[in-house]
Amino acid sequence: MLPFKTLIQTDKTLKLPVYQQIANRLIGLIQEGILKPGLYLPGSRVLALQLALHRKTVIAAYDELVSQDWLVAVPRKGVMVAGNLPVIRPRTYRGAVSPYEDAAAFSFHQVPSITLASVKPVTGALVVNDGFPDARLAPLTDWVKECRSVIESPRYHKLLMYGGATGLESLRKQMMEYLSDTRGLNISLPHIMITRGAQMAIYLAAALLIKKDDLVIVGSPNYFFADLCFEQRGAQLLRVPVDEEGIDVDMIEQLCSKRKIKMLYLITHHHHPTTVTLSAARRMKLLAVIRKYKLPVIEDDYDYDFHYSSAPILPLASADHGGNVIYIGSFTKSLGLSIRIGFMIAPADFIKAAADLRRLMDLRGDNLSEQALANLFEDGTIDRHLKKSNKIYKERRDLLCHLLRTKLGDAVKFTVPSGGMAIWLRFSKKYPLKKIAAKAAALGLQMTSGEQYHYGASSQNALRLGFASLNNKEIAAVVGTLEKVLFY
Amino acid sequence: MLPFKTLIQTDKTLKLPVYQQIANRLIGLIQEGILKPGLYLPGSRVLALQLALHRKTVIAAYDELVSQDWLVAVPRKGVMVAGNLPVIRPRTYRGAVSPYEDAAAFSFHQVPSITLASVKPVTGALVVNDGFPDARLAPLTDWVKECRSVIESPRYHKLLMYGGATGLESLRKQMMEYLSDTRGLNISLPHIMITRGAQMAIYLAAALLIKKDDLVIVGSPNYFFADLCFEQRGAQLLRVPVDEEGIDVDMIEQLCSKRKIKMLYLITHHHHPTTVTLSAARRMKLLAVIRKYKLPVIEDDYDYDFHYSSAPILPLASADHGGNVIYIGSFTKSLGLSIRIGFMIAPADFIKAAADLRRLMDLRGDNLSEQALANLFEDGTIDRHLKKSNKIYKERRDLLCHLLRTKLGDAVKFTVPSGGMAIWLRFSKKYPLKKIAAKAAALGLQMTSGEQYHYGASSQNALRLGFASLNNKEIAAVVGTLEKVLFY
Repeated sequence: MLPFKTLIQTDKTLKLPVYQQIANRLIGLIQEGILKPGLYLPGSRVLALQLALHRKTVIAAYDELVSQDWLVAVPRKGVMVAGNLPVIRPRTYRGAVSPYEDAAAFSFHQVPSITLASVKPVTGALVVNDGFPDARLAPLTDWVKECRSVIESPRYHKLLMYGGATGLESLRKQMMEYLSDTRGLNISLPHIMITRGAQMAIYLAAALLIKKDDLVIVGSPNYFFADLCFEQRGAQLLRVPVDEEGIDVDMIEQLCSKRKIKMLYLITHHHHPTTVTLSAARRMKLLAVIRKYKLPVIEDDYDYDFHYSSAPILPLASADHGGNVIYIGSFTKSLGLSIRIGFMIAPADFIKAAADLRRLMDLRGDNLSEQALANLFEDGTIDRHLKKSNKIYKERRDLLCHLLRTKLGDAVKFTVPSGGMAIWLRFSKKYPLKKIAAKAAALGLQMTSGEQYHYGASSQNALRLGFASLNNKEIAAVVGTLEKVLFY
Repeated sequence: MLPFKTLIQTDKTLKLPVYQQIANRLIGLIQEGILKPGLYLPGSRVLALQLALHRKTVIAAYDELVSQDWLVAVPRKGVMVAGNLPVIRPRTYRGAVSPYEDAAAFSFHQVPSITLASVKPVTGALVVNDGFPDARLAPLTDWVKECRSVIESPRYHKLLMYGGATGLESLRKQMMEYLSDTRGLNISLPHIMITRGAQMAIYLAAALLIKKDDLVIVGSPNYFFADLCFEQRGAQLLRVPVDEEGIDVDMIEQLCSKRKIKMLYLITHHHHPTTVTLSAARRMKLLAVIRKYKLPVIEDDYDYDFHYSSAPILPLASADHGGNVIYIGSFTKSLGLSIRIGFMIAPADFIKAAADLRRLMDLRGDNLSEQALANLFEDGTIDRHLKKSNKIYKERRDLLCHLLRTKLGDAVKFTVPSGGMAIWLRFSKKYPLKKIAAKAAALGLQMTSGEQYHYGASSQNALRLGFASLNNKEIAAVVGTLEKVLFY
């Protein structure tokens, strides 16, 4: 008889019942070819003795395997390993070769695989990010309260079960009202869908619009995850310079007059990475171009709700665009980044197609979070949060600008952004960012060396210095460390 | 002077400050061409009188528009509409033509646009769904508690800010342990990523594997959202019959021997829609085929944790598949459907590519929910919930089967499923489902007429009768209504 005592080891502290541990191990032994087809296993009493277990446990394991067809119960003879099972060896994923043959050719591989957004901070280190909100200010306690109130309400289980790919209607209504109040958008329910943050909206719009080799206009430099998204769909990117007034609209018109342009991607407030707002004059000119060439546009206005110097400029989507503008935004930054809720505004047939595609990617949204957010809109919490955080972020922006000017002087250049969460900080050529980042890390300050901002564009020795998530003390510490790195 | 009192109406009850309401309305008037470039606006005192507002409000509006370049302040003459703004008319999205030219040709349009999953239940109606869990049993109160404990913990804001596209490490570790205990999967961190439910994992795997015109084997009938997902990537589907033992593996081998097959999609437990479990013998045979032809497989085992008749059969992914099996599962059904958390297990390079793509679709997951779930794994809540709900679902399955047999007799046929949340209920040809569904609706029972289950396959006059979300009383009411519909 085989040394079952050695072959089968059980552990009562595991979550899995012991009889299932035995069954799984026996399957392993069958798969490894140690228990061969046609072999009779020891009787349950004998095996139970060997393993020092109750006989009922062994019987349960055998029953299990018989019901799964691994073993066959032969009357008056006992249980036998089934005869129709070819022998195999078990294997793990360790060192396995992927079935995905094009890994090396995949276009993402051009990009630094670790962008700052995914860097895990070193414990205790001060981190400069790309422009994140301060989760400490987010109304998360209120959000948790609303979640509880939703699951305590009668019929909540029906709410959780039946959701559509366009998102919860009550939240879409609250958002419509909010977008009408703040952006003058005149829309109704078929024109809005909720997404997992603005990124999903960009992906959906790109997937519906772009075919292989289509020409897509983007800013230079541009938000890298948008560029990658369009390239991944097979687009050829035409890069148009972004200056202090935003993207060069004359050049867009020139391109449209010469070639068939499939789409324009645009960040109208606080362009990523350079934080510029597209001027009113350029917006008007661009609208004429959009109408003349029926140019589809993704207007990514992710940062509209965070504007300090004046009110933000009304979106292209609020003006006469002939249905060509897909308007995208987000409340993720109001909710502390983890709860990702964005939206897409478009003609009704486009929203329907986007919802159909979203269903294949992610069935539907999270009705619990969405209802909680709808409640926070309704009771004014989101409004109050935005007012409060705009005030605080403005102070932080001003403090950072002041310290940068007084402490770093000519070593850096920047334009005060009219809103958003980051400053586009250009370093003098004397100070290569790569070296600065390395020195800063040694002093406990984590920051990017900036390569990801120049994806497809030329390097400017610059980075986005996110100020919103840093309190006054932390801002002073960041600038203090930079001062040490640059001058000492 | 223009009738500004009529043209500009303000409303103090709105959230938007009155001065911004005025500014937005003035922009509208400029865009409509009513206020033409070069026109001087009335002095602030005059306009304030007309509108019955404080002068400061009007000044704030003018300042706003000057800073946005809509107006120009001319010293000693007042404010003028800027001269460089072309005239445009505002428009809404209502009736707009979409920039998405292929809407009509989109392949999704073949599918019934309303599948049961997205039907909104009529208030008060009893709903038969496709196989949803009972959200009333889900540990949502515990989940909310864990969310609160996360946001009350020190440094939670860093947790919320810095997340990666593969999901939170602490949750991946908990899942690895759980998957090892329950499925014998021997993996480490680089082999697992968290997704928004199993659907996102299917989409990601399909997007990485499938190119236009690739041949993909699926069951007939098959889970429609998987079929649609592959077709949307340009795949040509080869449909292989699914019988009482699962998919026909001999036919898969035949196909592989004749043509280059890109991928096989497989639901190993409780096939959707027919609820069949792939038998142990076929699994062994299939593993040999996978190894011989290096056949990439998506093993969708979404229902593994809900199995009543015996223990579930270990996944293909736990055996010797040469790295070709992408294993997909979900905890969405344990969390009451709204909080969508699934996973993908694959070789490390595949997970890396999938995470890169996920970043473009949805940047990253929700660290707050993921940490809450990790805590629920750690303290045993998920385990207890699964034990409890398996017991309850088994009772519900048995009650439903008993009632169907005794009350509906020969009018219906079904095989008792060994697990899962639905019965595949075939109606006798005498009773066309379309008519039954219409009659049931009149009696307050919402159910599908079943078309979505036959996408690409021939109709069987059958539907999935989800039992898990119905309590005993509701199950009796459903069968009672069906009895009335069929026999009275």
